[in-house]
Amino acid sequence: MNIPSYQSKYRQMTEGSKLLYKKSTKIFPGGISHNIRYFQPYPFFVKKSKGKTLYDVDGNAFTDYWMGHWAQILGHASQPITKALSTQVRKGTLYGTVNEASVELGSLIQKVMPLAELLRFSSTGSEATMYAIRLARAKTGRRVIAKIIGGWHGFNTPLLQTVNYPFEYEEGPGLIQDEEQFIESIPFNDLDRSIKILESIKDDLAGIIVEPVLGGAGCIPPQEDYLTGLQEFARKTGSMYILDEIVTGFRLSLGGAVQYYRLDPDLFTLGKIVGGGMPIGVVCGKKEVMALADPVKRNSKQSCCAIGGGTFSANPMTMTAGMASLKYLIKNRRSVYRKINNLGNQTRQGLNKIFSEARIPVDVTGVGSLFCTHFLNSESERILDAADVGKSNRNMLIRYQVALMSNHRIFFLPLKMGAFSEAHSERDMNALFDSTRSIISSGILSS
Amino acid sequence: MNIPSYQSKYRQMTEGSKLLYKKSTKIFPGGISHNIRYFQPYPFFVKKSKGKTLYDVDGNAFTDYWMGHWAQILGHASQPITKALSTQVRKGTLYGTVNEASVELGSLIQKVMPLAELLRFSSTGSEATMYAIRLARAKTGRRVIAKIIGGWHGFNTPLLQTVNYPFEYEEGPGLIQDEEQFIESIPFNDLDRSIKILESIKDDLAGIIVEPVLGGAGCIPPQEDYLTGLQEFARKTGSMYILDEIVTGFRLSLGGAVQYYRLDPDLFTLGKIVGGGMPIGVVCGKKEVMALADPVKRNSKQSCCAIGGGTFSANPMTMTAGMASLKYLIKNRRSVYRKINNLGNQTRQGLNKIFSEARIPVDVTGVGSLFCTHFLNSESERILDAADVGKSNRNMLIRYQVALMSNHRIFFLPLKMGAFSEAHSERDMNALFDSTRSIISSGILSS
Repeated sequence: MNIPSYQSKYRQMTEGSKLLYKKSTKIFPGGISHNIRYFQPYPFFVKKSKGKTLYDVDGNAFTDYWMGHWAQILGHASQPITKALSTQVRKGTLYGTVNEASVELGSLIQKVMPLAELLRFSSTGSEATMYAIRLARAKTGRRVIAKIIGGWHGFNTPLLQTVNYPFEYEEGPGLIQDEEQFIESIPFNDLDRSIKILESIKDDLAGIIVEPVLGGAGCIPPQEDYLTGLQEFARKTGSMYILDEIVTGFRLSLGGAVQYYRLDPDLFTLGKIVGGGMPIGVVCGKKEVMALADPVKRNSKQSCCAIGGGTFSANPMTMTAGMASLKYLIKNRRSVYRKINNLGNQTRQGLNKIFSEARIPVDVTGVGSLFCTHFLNSESERILDAADVGKSNRNMLIRYQVALMSNHRIFFLPLKMGAFSEAHSERDMNALFDSTRSIISSGILSS
Repeated sequence: MNIPSYQSKYRQMTEGSKLLYKKSTKIFPGGISHNIRYFQPYPFFVKKSKGKTLYDVDGNAFTDYWMGHWAQILGHASQPITKALSTQVRKGTLYGTVNEASVELGSLIQKVMPLAELLRFSSTGSEATMYAIRLARAKTGRRVIAKIIGGWHGFNTPLLQTVNYPFEYEEGPGLIQDEEQFIESIPFNDLDRSIKILESIKDDLAGIIVEPVLGGAGCIPPQEDYLTGLQEFARKTGSMYILDEIVTGFRLSLGGAVQYYRLDPDLFTLGKIVGGGMPIGVVCGKKEVMALADPVKRNSKQSCCAIGGGTFSANPMTMTAGMASLKYLIKNRRSVYRKINNLGNQTRQGLNKIFSEARIPVDVTGVGSLFCTHFLNSESERILDAADVGKSNRNMLIRYQVALMSNHRIFFLPLKMGAFSEAHSERDMNALFDSTRSIISSGILSS
């Protein structure tokens, strides 16, 4: 088989990465520490980052739309965060105790997200969602958690179900069959079918967890009334409504999807942006639910819902970076969100138009600063849920994204959505348009 | 009830913390983000750290034996880590991709821990142990994981069982009964009873997970042959032997408990020290087990054991801090471990002697640089497992530790073991002895 020219170009420009990847496979299974970071022929190795740019070990500079799993909303190594962390580093990275910085960051979150009546810091999103469903079960005394087919809430055991297409298969060996019986999966954006399933389990329904915009599954915004429909059902049946805002929090707006779509969850989770690029997860929610995890008032193991925490929770580096991030976003709320949301809107319109003119059926999905190109099998298809993404032309998307890397130094993590940051500009968007036109006319997509 | 003098002294010297704690309870359930960080009347709030010292918001300086959950083996804000992080901060905190630093740290771990034939970075220890048992189940096709009564492997759902005394109660509401059926708990340091239990479930036994030294449960070293006995049983029955070295790795020796006790686990987990004070968890193990998580060679969801990863896995800040930490430890291996282990040995002997002379029955347990004072109910008791700790005089331990804070500015997280770091000296140890004598003679312990 001939290697397509854009792939051989990628190999030529990443010879250092090739060697490092080879070394890396002797250290890590598959050469990576996160499955999605691998792509063919091998991923390039980053040595530094600044603003919108990733610099690899071979001296290539990529305009980045992956932006640290969409966490770096101010750009890489942004001035406010770099400055704050440089000072904090000298004061220590891990006190292992309560500290002033965590009170300040917690208080700032409450200010812009008033539904965070109480909150708990952990170190990752996987932890935060795991604790959120534990709280829902503790609050209701029920067992079943409903999640979305294709919904992604991290690698924690209870929620690692119906994540990847084809959804009818388990998410791999090592997950015990019987752990699944208390998860029920419902189809995104299909309120009727979702409610029908929920009705059948309502007596044991502890909570419904949902990403307001499906993220990992392919950047799919909610259709009107879907999220409020689930919310109403939860209210009516006394189960907890849990929004996973790890991607959307501080992204869609300062108040996240709660503000953007006017929602009222009992619990919600944060991550990514709220840590300013440092490891974080947060469970937030109504006082009456969160208070179940109060180890002071509920000082017996039978009464207190045990949630982490963990060694690195509320560490001063994360707290400091998070504060610098939120303070900047609060101060510049108008300009930042106007800018990145405009870029997102124009990009979705622009790419849809470019592909449409070339008669390549796509649906460029997204909302605000988030966007993803899906190559369809016919003009009549649309992307409304994770199954639609599963059935789309994923190989064509990989070709497009690897060609963007090799021929135009533009980086999307293959198969994943992109995000604008404060560090991007209209010029970057126009470069993406020009590169896309060039890739279309080169015939790479149909190769 | 009269407030004892050491408690009123604590209140007087921590007025700023009192206000902050009050504010904190409006933000976090119980005012904390990790249950063990609360103690009465309220914890002091740290604003910076350096070497062996924590500085609080009221200007107090505490000699720290908690040392960031025992992670800060070089001391707080140590020069090599501070220097490395100051440089890295300017290059970016989260690339979200593969990077050179992760290959270097992974390679360094393999160099000193050759049983890490392959490894995977995650962001917390709770994640690492959760992935380790998933791998064990994937490898064996069996379901049951045996853990130690009182064993602590983080807040992940599957392993949050038989953690706190009294062990016969569940670890709080929100944990589903049925999730427990695949965990079997065995008593630490009782090989006969452990093997008897394991025999009864051996056909479905996927793995045995054990901390070589019980950490959270109270600093209990293994008795001769206990760890190798479990290891033999695992080998014989084809189940995985999993060592949780999150505390002991790079702590007991450069090669951790594996080297110290000459063990040969199939899988082991790291955390704390290996991240140099930044968030980390690592699953390491034999190639044939770890390779089950290789998403490149096993590129269908049915064949690949899905483990994280996560957004922050292998982030360059953690990798950089970890490398600075390990390089220092490798270069100064003789002096560091000789020093901290000597201090540990002398401290256990010294404290045992001091209490014995005062006719206060204690068992100061530990190994190497780790130690914990347990107040016994009679001279004849000894601390061999978590139940012994549960039955010991915990209130007296809290009085001792809070008195150390208020009267002598020495900090142990109440109820938790202490650890020496490179930043401590004999002078600190002698100050701990003097302070202990003074507390004994003041009558605080019997109040």
